[in-house]
Amino acid sequence: MSTNLSVPEPSSQLIKTAQSVKKASNCLGQSTNDQRCEALTMMADALNDNIEEILKANLIDLERSEKEGLSKSLLARLQLTPNKLKGCIDGVLKVSNLSDPIGHRQLHRKLDETLILERVTVPLGVLGVIFESRPDALIQIASLAIRSGNGALLKGGSEARSTNKAIMGCLDQGLSKSNIGSGALSLLTTRQESLGLLRLDRFVDLIIPRGSNELVQFIQENTRITVLGHADGICHLYIDDSVEIDQAISLALDSKIQYPAACNAIETLLIHQNVAEEFLKKSIPIFSNAGVTLKGDVQSQSLGVKNPATDEDWSTEYLDLILSVKIVSNVDEAIEHIRKYSSRHTEAIATNNKEIAEKFLRSVDSSGVYHNCSTRFADGFRYGFGAEVGISTQTLPPRGPVGLEGLVTYRYFLRGNGDLVKDFVSGDRKFSHTDLLL
Amino acid sequence: MSTNLSVPEPSSQLIKTAQSVKKASNCLGQSTNDQRCEALTMMADALNDNIEEILKANLIDLERSEKEGLSKSLLARLQLTPNKLKGCIDGVLKVSNLSDPIGHRQLHRKLDETLILERVTVPLGVLGVIFESRPDALIQIASLAIRSGNGALLKGGSEARSTNKAIMGCLDQGLSKSNIGSGALSLLTTRQESLGLLRLDRFVDLIIPRGSNELVQFIQENTRITVLGHADGICHLYIDDSVEIDQAISLALDSKIQYPAACNAIETLLIHQNVAEEFLKKSIPIFSNAGVTLKGDVQSQSLGVKNPATDEDWSTEYLDLILSVKIVSNVDEAIEHIRKYSSRHTEAIATNNKEIAEKFLRSVDSSGVYHNCSTRFADGFRYGFGAEVGISTQTLPPRGPVGLEGLVTYRYFLRGNGDLVKDFVSGDRKFSHTDLLL
Repeated sequence: MSTNLSVPEPSSQLIKTAQSVKKASNCLGQSTNDQRCEALTMMADALNDNIEEILKANLIDLERSEKEGLSKSLLARLQLTPNKLKGCIDGVLKVSNLSDPIGHRQLHRKLDETLILERVTVPLGVLGVIFESRPDALIQIASLAIRSGNGALLKGGSEARSTNKAIMGCLDQGLSKSNIGSGALSLLTTRQESLGLLRLDRFVDLIIPRGSNELVQFIQENTRITVLGHADGICHLYIDDSVEIDQAISLALDSKIQYPAACNAIETLLIHQNVAEEFLKKSIPIFSNAGVTLKGDVQSQSLGVKNPATDEDWSTEYLDLILSVKIVSNVDEAIEHIRKYSSRHTEAIATNNKEIAEKFLRSVDSSGVYHNCSTRFADGFRYGFGAEVGISTQTLPPRGPVGLEGLVTYRYFLRGNGDLVKDFVSGDRKFSHTDLLL
Repeated sequence: MSTNLSVPEPSSQLIKTAQSVKKASNCLGQSTNDQRCEALTMMADALNDNIEEILKANLIDLERSEKEGLSKSLLARLQLTPNKLKGCIDGVLKVSNLSDPIGHRQLHRKLDETLILERVTVPLGVLGVIFESRPDALIQIASLAIRSGNGALLKGGSEARSTNKAIMGCLDQGLSKSNIGSGALSLLTTRQESLGLLRLDRFVDLIIPRGSNELVQFIQENTRITVLGHADGICHLYIDDSVEIDQAISLALDSKIQYPAACNAIETLLIHQNVAEEFLKKSIPIFSNAGVTLKGDVQSQSLGVKNPATDEDWSTEYLDLILSVKIVSNVDEAIEHIRKYSSRHTEAIATNNKEIAEKFLRSVDSSGVYHNCSTRFADGFRYGFGAEVGISTQTLPPRGPVGLEGLVTYRYFLRGNGDLVKDFVSGDRKFSHTDLLL
């Protein structure tokens, strides 16, 4: 599809930048764990030493963006308070405390006497990161990149340009004071560059978009580079008929209102017909008190849901206090509905029937499938990964919440003593394929 | 890029087929290991019972293709002999003897008292397989698909249409006699369908192309679905100056001539300047005897290589008895050259210097990096995987030779007892993140 891309060819300047980041990433990829941890400490120190300068730059961005009419919610994302910034800097140190994702031996096998195969985790190479508004994303992603031995080309929203420049100055300063040296991180500043980035498949190994669904979808449709992430988070909770109604209501509530703008919040509630009346009778006032607007199919409307849901609702990610409701005749219809409309992010079932629960877990192919718990648990920190680069809804690994582990790949090393394939083909030698200690 | 695709929208008939394979794959994905193994046995039995019929169909294809002027090498690929067919049927049984890639628990963690997280391997879903000429590929891929719990849409070369139809009839017959039932495999027969397949991203989870570089490249550029494989295999062998010349020559020879049409055969030999004269003096007659044409840079021409190599040669996959030769001043220049021209398939170094060897292994980011052994070892069978779907040169896993393990993904299961995120956010509960036994 390269010939039909609607994005421009990268400029020679951008190619030069990418080449130099690629080169630096080659060195970074061979650094020791201690060196990478030291670099993170230096990066955190440099940020700490320049908090005032960063906040000043942020103020410039805020004032300009306010004048330009940036929405309140985006202004809130753009704003760095001293506490928020300190939290981010703490985050850098936390990433340095995570265990090293590099150098894990996944396979160790004697193919024959003198021929030893290893499979060892190695960095991906260079990450291309595109993020909107939040300048804290720059700090987080940069520290994850360095920790995992990857270089990165980073493009932030133009509304945060002064803040990003100040932050990148600190990160670079920290890197250059460390044994890693500067060069592995580079901030892109123009829209032209972020478009050009999508065509740098010779230099960039993974694109990580952090922003609106529209941004992610645009990127997915305009690059040959693998994209980590998800455009939609259309999550479901199915209320089975063998269920404690109060627990089911609290699960629905937590999954919807605990943070409705999150991708792991539910958009659709599926309710077994046998408990629909009781569930809705009890829950409608509770949802109403919590400010949640319910939109229902014909059956649930007859049970008190005021607003109608159209076909479009089943595939809409509201990211808001709106919840679509559908009555189903059994778990199979629920699974069918989920297969049709889910974005394969996270789905949950509320039931006391273990058999039904296991059927649901086996049958629903989303990256997370839950029994009797809130969909909002779908998160790298909550899974115990320490930090996450995002949540992937693709089929192939890494999927679900992706931590440092998702920023590495592996390489096969084969060490021999002049071994030739012809000797195995002729039958003079035979493979023993003996697994050795990992 | 979906709007710019040069491939047509899938027909409604193709969508129907894909839907029905998807549905069958949902059931298949929940089958037990024994059921899938039994299905493979039934498939092998059905093939065994119909050997004559398959060979007859193959004869029809051969006669028609000969009339149509198909090249000799393609006719050889198309032809099934009784022995070749029996070998394929044995292969089906071998795949059934491989260990189950499904249901492996990769992570088992208590997030808090009642909240247990698991990560378990599951099938990908539906594979889209496009292969040329060789009807044996149909048998092999179909058995790997069923073994790993995946459905498959399979499109073979039209020259093999009668053979493929006969084989698919047997596979389907075997499946329908087993507990799996038929429906998970479907043969596509028209070019229109194989193009439409590339746009079935709603139903197909992975495309596996088996054929020419042109085929693979066309597919990579015309689908949003993940493609497993490699377009090019430009592999290098670097001869260091601290080396046993005779061993180095035999490594070069095995890597080039053992099977020159293979993707893991070398295309370029890089030779340290200090040993270039000795190496070429000894090896030129040996290469010549083996029918290998050498094409060299200026320096190697001055040392006896007769044909000049142009810049284009460094990025050419000859798939033939041709080898380009370049003299380099040290291992760094060799690594630089490989980084620039390699297709990240497999590269090797011949040296007695362990330090140089480890530097090479650390610095070259191909899926396989070898020390003192032939590049021709890059192969799933030789690695001990039992069977392979292909070799991937992409950065993200699965890369290198891909066995059954590459046809699965994973899913996170979280089981709780009404657990809510708000309790963890409020601080009422705390994550313990205790790893449990796998």
